[in-house]
Amino acid sequence: MLAPGSTIGILGGGQLGRMLCFAAARLGFQTRTFSPDTDGPASQVSGTHHSAAYDDKDALKAFADACDIVTLEFENIPVETVDFITKSGTTVFPRRNALETAQDRLTEKSFIRDNGVPVTPFREVSSLEQLEAAIEALGLPLVLKTRRMGYDGLGQKVIRDRADAKAAFEVLGDTPKIAEGFINFTREVSVVAGRREDGESASFPLIENDHRNHILSHSTLPAPRDNALARDYAKTVLEALDYVGVMAVEFFEKGDGSLLVNEIAPRVHNSGHGTMNAGCVDQFELHIRAIAGWPLGDLEPKNAVIMENLIGDDVKALANLAKEPATHIHMYGKKDIRPGRKMAHVNRVKPL
Amino acid sequence: MLAPGSTIGILGGGQLGRMLCFAAARLGFQTRTFSPDTDGPASQVSGTHHSAAYDDKDALKAFADACDIVTLEFENIPVETVDFITKSGTTVFPRRNALETAQDRLTEKSFIRDNGVPVTPFREVSSLEQLEAAIEALGLPLVLKTRRMGYDGLGQKVIRDRADAKAAFEVLGDTPKIAEGFINFTREVSVVAGRREDGESASFPLIENDHRNHILSHSTLPAPRDNALARDYAKTVLEALDYVGVMAVEFFEKGDGSLLVNEIAPRVHNSGHGTMNAGCVDQFELHIRAIAGWPLGDLEPKNAVIMENLIGDDVKALANLAKEPATHIHMYGKKDIRPGRKMAHVNRVKPL
Repeated sequence: MLAPGSTIGILGGGQLGRMLCFAAARLGFQTRTFSPDTDGPASQVSGTHHSAAYDDKDALKAFADACDIVTLEFENIPVETVDFITKSGTTVFPRRNALETAQDRLTEKSFIRDNGVPVTPFREVSSLEQLEAAIEALGLPLVLKTRRMGYDGLGQKVIRDRADAKAAFEVLGDTPKIAEGFINFTREVSVVAGRREDGESASFPLIENDHRNHILSHSTLPAPRDNALARDYAKTVLEALDYVGVMAVEFFEKGDGSLLVNEIAPRVHNSGHGTMNAGCVDQFELHIRAIAGWPLGDLEPKNAVIMENLIGDDVKALANLAKEPATHIHMYGKKDIRPGRKMAHVNRVKPL
Repeated sequence: MLAPGSTIGILGGGQLGRMLCFAAARLGFQTRTFSPDTDGPASQVSGTHHSAAYDDKDALKAFADACDIVTLEFENIPVETVDFITKSGTTVFPRRNALETAQDRLTEKSFIRDNGVPVTPFREVSSLEQLEAAIEALGLPLVLKTRRMGYDGLGQKVIRDRADAKAAFEVLGDTPKIAEGFINFTREVSVVAGRREDGESASFPLIENDHRNHILSHSTLPAPRDNALARDYAKTVLEALDYVGVMAVEFFEKGDGSLLVNEIAPRVHNSGHGTMNAGCVDQFELHIRAIAGWPLGDLEPKNAVIMENLIGDDVKALANLAKEPATHIHMYGKKDIRPGRKMAHVNRVKPL
């Protein structure tokens, strides 16, 4: 067990890092954050913030030396950054293999499939010929995505007609791509699970997610209807990666109840924010407990939670939200309201 | 409503300030702390910490200028400090009158009595003659206390025998004192209430407290048995002070159900820590909402909480506490374990 008073370093400066800082502090840890920004959501609440580029070796060395353990809140931290910190003698959880796997959609989906967990059908697309072959194999419509750096619907195009294929291929730019079969799903669900270095793991009950405009809008914990396989699949993925920390696994559920992994996130996850007011250990504390080798704690919700993201102008409803009974506000400390920007979330609690 | 992004300054550097910082950040405020220490519980989690003496005017000016509003976590902040910040143009809530009243036990008890709220019987003791008169009026045993700066049983002596009076008087030193009648009470309860500048107020349900060695050990929210008068009395005190922020009012309850105020604390209070896991707005957020002019929010617990202080070596049980179901850990970030020092608390939640 990493002793209270030890310092946990967090790579990344957003709201996930912010909420990790709260959880780490509750358990008595000192916190340091590292990100290029100077006044981001995490830096406002960490003990010390290191503002530098992820390839600034002097800054990384100073950060690594000041931390007893390092983690991350953002899966696109360069693996070279993780390697540098690890070589400086400070452990980073999750390890580079999890990042490497999750940063590339092709590697990610291949890995999941190869471990016996059903995944959305996919094909590598590095040329127009491969795209034609993918259309042949997966049918239309399909989704063409960049293999790296996409999120919230960015870096992807739906191809509905063979005639649109070339334009979609070109608009995504000269970067490796992946084609994914269009899934006719009935709902989207996720599992947030944590695992320690010694292999002990645990997960929250299934969460049901509602996206709008490709951005998560609402999450319900526990999902109104369970799907017992989801947590098993998540555990299989964590084991296969010898993962340490919290990971989220997103699934599509089809009409027959079967599940296909959509993607994994090697970090705490927006769909898990409801855990903050479920009356049990929350996902941020679970992550800190997992990387610190603590008992993982009680993940059984004592009440139901419906999490709602406040995106862009949604946050202007704050005065009314603050009046609502059984509603918990979590603001991210972001100064500028922009369309599509996650500004805050609210958790509405209900009896189970 | 003070807008998110505004800066809330907190005078005092302890665990109450730490938990106020968490609540302020959740609501989107920036935080600054001011206290003489350099690495206290609050400074570890605030956005910026000002380390200086409470009479350092340059430091206070810089702090006041950087804050949109200032509050405090410690009732013995010098009133001159509050006056200086107020004159610099930054509002301080609670106002100086509340501090002035609460910092002197004689002023405090007189004020409460004069507002029609029952209080433990007391007499001013500035001389041995006055002590003799107090013994005559209040009977024995009685408790002789310094009028200022006592807490957790410090600065007080029980006089059981007339022969001990002189020694008790002298051991407390050459400082104004107060004699308080010994109350044969059946339980200790408290009310934590908040009030806005416009007079809107609200309180949590009654809390029942269990002290050991003059230090709060456990608090139960809600108290297993209510006493409806307590919240009315608390409201009377808040109104009489035209109070802004959260205040705790501690009572003794006698066998016949009557209540006597023991003391008031013009700040968030140890007995209110259970609110952090009661599923409603907690006392720290209530305080921030009250001083920021926000809706006070939902103070109705969704579950019961038994709060237990971890004092001194108690904190060494952490590994076992971390395994307990339905138990929430709140560490204060204190490096040195000392006897009698509050290191952390745990909140054990139960269905109502």
